[in-house]
Amino acid sequence: MKLETIRCKAAVAWGPGQDLKIETVDVAPPKAGEVRIKLIATGVCHTDAYTLSGDDPEGVFPSILGHEGGGIVESIGEGVTSVKVGDHVIPLYTPECGECKFCQSGKTNLCQKIRATQGKGLMPDGTSRFSINGEIIYHYMGTSTFSEYTVLPEISLAKVNPKAPLEEVCLLGCGVTTGMGAVMNTAKVEAGASVAIFGLGGIGLSAIIGAAMAKASRIIAIDINERKFDLAKRLGATDCINPKDFDKPIQDVIVELTDGGVDYSFECIGNVDIMRSALECCHKGWGESVIIGVAGAGQEISTRPFQLVTGRVWRGTAFGGVKGRSELPDYVERYLAGEFALDDFITHTMSLEQVNEAFELMHKGESIRSVIHFEQQG
Amino acid sequence: MKLETIRCKAAVAWGPGQDLKIETVDVAPPKAGEVRIKLIATGVCHTDAYTLSGDDPEGVFPSILGHEGGGIVESIGEGVTSVKVGDHVIPLYTPECGECKFCQSGKTNLCQKIRATQGKGLMPDGTSRFSINGEIIYHYMGTSTFSEYTVLPEISLAKVNPKAPLEEVCLLGCGVTTGMGAVMNTAKVEAGASVAIFGLGGIGLSAIIGAAMAKASRIIAIDINERKFDLAKRLGATDCINPKDFDKPIQDVIVELTDGGVDYSFECIGNVDIMRSALECCHKGWGESVIIGVAGAGQEISTRPFQLVTGRVWRGTAFGGVKGRSELPDYVERYLAGEFALDDFITHTMSLEQVNEAFELMHKGESIRSVIHFEQQG
Repeated sequence: MKLETIRCKAAVAWGPGQDLKIETVDVAPPKAGEVRIKLIATGVCHTDAYTLSGDDPEGVFPSILGHEGGGIVESIGEGVTSVKVGDHVIPLYTPECGECKFCQSGKTNLCQKIRATQGKGLMPDGTSRFSINGEIIYHYMGTSTFSEYTVLPEISLAKVNPKAPLEEVCLLGCGVTTGMGAVMNTAKVEAGASVAIFGLGGIGLSAIIGAAMAKASRIIAIDINERKFDLAKRLGATDCINPKDFDKPIQDVIVELTDGGVDYSFECIGNVDIMRSALECCHKGWGESVIIGVAGAGQEISTRPFQLVTGRVWRGTAFGGVKGRSELPDYVERYLAGEFALDDFITHTMSLEQVNEAFELMHKGESIRSVIHFEQQG
Repeated sequence: MKLETIRCKAAVAWGPGQDLKIETVDVAPPKAGEVRIKLIATGVCHTDAYTLSGDDPEGVFPSILGHEGGGIVESIGEGVTSVKVGDHVIPLYTPECGECKFCQSGKTNLCQKIRATQGKGLMPDGTSRFSINGEIIYHYMGTSTFSEYTVLPEISLAKVNPKAPLEEVCLLGCGVTTGMGAVMNTAKVEAGASVAIFGLGGIGLSAIIGAAMAKASRIIAIDINERKFDLAKRLGATDCINPKDFDKPIQDVIVELTDGGVDYSFECIGNVDIMRSALECCHKGWGESVIIGVAGAGQEISTRPFQLVTGRVWRGTAFGGVKGRSELPDYVERYLAGEFALDDFITHTMSLEQVNEAFELMHKGESIRSVIHFEQQG
């Protein structure tokens, strides 16, 4: 049976700084090794806003943004074997091919198999599946979840338990997994450890959940927006600190508070000055700081090398170090087993038409996550 | 039997930038928990020169420098149980008390038990054992090995196999252990790994030995002094590179040479720009860079956080992460077993009177290590 092009609704980013516009787009059938999915829901993340702002050097327009989705396989291209029509899937902006030098190393989740084309907004064969009246619309992060239908390479899909509500576990496609994974997977926080988490957006709050699951004895949450503190405490933070309450550097405050510094710290903002604070609040001899936030283009981190020579470790993480296809399904299982909740994160739900409101809520600091629910006909 | 003050020769640093002067000093008996040793030999290290230059913010004068020694226990103070008269020992500028938070952590060798007094040039009770005509002469790094006799806390002595020639294994008191330990202990380089080593002084050459012992498959040695290359190759370097031969950053050269970067890199100079190169020549996804060199006061390292977010790790090490009392004796055993040689490092031997020549040879880049042999009467 020959697959047909699907005509559907999508939110298109026509250029930097412009509102997204709802358009009718053509979504071509999946080619060999590709899969077309019907989106059920998608979160709206800061990274989408970052690219839309025009600051992202890799940003390509016109394109369909969105990378935190949940959907159902609608059709598969030639040679696809790991998923079948009807499977529930989470799109992965970091694929897992299992074959490249990176996947084979066992040391990283940064599969590079399709990096070159993905960075250009294209499928691995160098073309796009999206178009409007024949004009090319580019993919974004290999996912483009702000569309009723999207096409992805097979290696960019995690097949998950169909019992999981996609309207919630879509958040495991980016923010929640990034925060939890940074704690459990990258830093490997152990029971009894002390932890400092800078920035209480979706990623920082997820890092708190991860630290609580790891049984950290002290979880210090830092933000200048105190409205985040109630939820932070509910999720497991033992101390909430506003740097504006002190007239000395926040790292000094934390070092005093913890008799020498924390065992692990996490920067969940993307601010290079806070990255330094996060490193320097770590304990001499063994403290490790993990950068999660993405800094603006060209910005640099700095510190005195003495900080490292005396035993601190500086590292970073992307997608929490989680290998999407082999490890993400287990996060869904743990969610289903009740080990953590996701509804705390979902402060707003809305339709695709309201996507620009989601960006406004985010910029005002009023939302943690807005989740778009796609209309399901029939 | 009451212990007497010993009057002996020592090289005294009277002030920053001045030549050391051979003086007759009084070395008081060891107090409780202290040990007096007779030096057999001592290396002359860059750190001694750094403090003598006046750049070391912790430098105290007048003092007796030297921290890379080998000696024999002459007398012990009250309560000392771990060494006895006649034992062969290596002084430790990083002690190991076994009781402080740092020792108890098991995660670091940075024992802090006597840090405050050691940094001030004093024994743990806040006084000095050295004097000249009643005028106080300060200790240095808790070791002061440029003296025929010195006094140290018991926790600052590693008891070693008396079969080992102290004229050689004294180098395990600093440089050689620092370089080998950084590779084997801090980075835990595994067989088959690729390694880049920046700076071919005593520490860099020792790092090469460590990498060869760890069976690294590729050992890239980098220095602007090509006279070091022959020895580097003899010790195990597979490639020797002079950054001056290229018109692009050395990290780019190494990334090309290794198809993506090295698994581990080591900065053995103390230059913050090279520290950046060392980080950025590491492989995306897993490369780890270890800072060994000590930078000038106030200098800072910097890089784009993207380097860490994409999987590189930045760490540092002091004394190669080696716990002096519990782990250094095994380095001596491995030396005795023929696993590595030390005579390659000893380019010059001399008497204490010639100590200023040792500094000159070092500054001219003509020596790797000068070792002072103390005159043995009777």
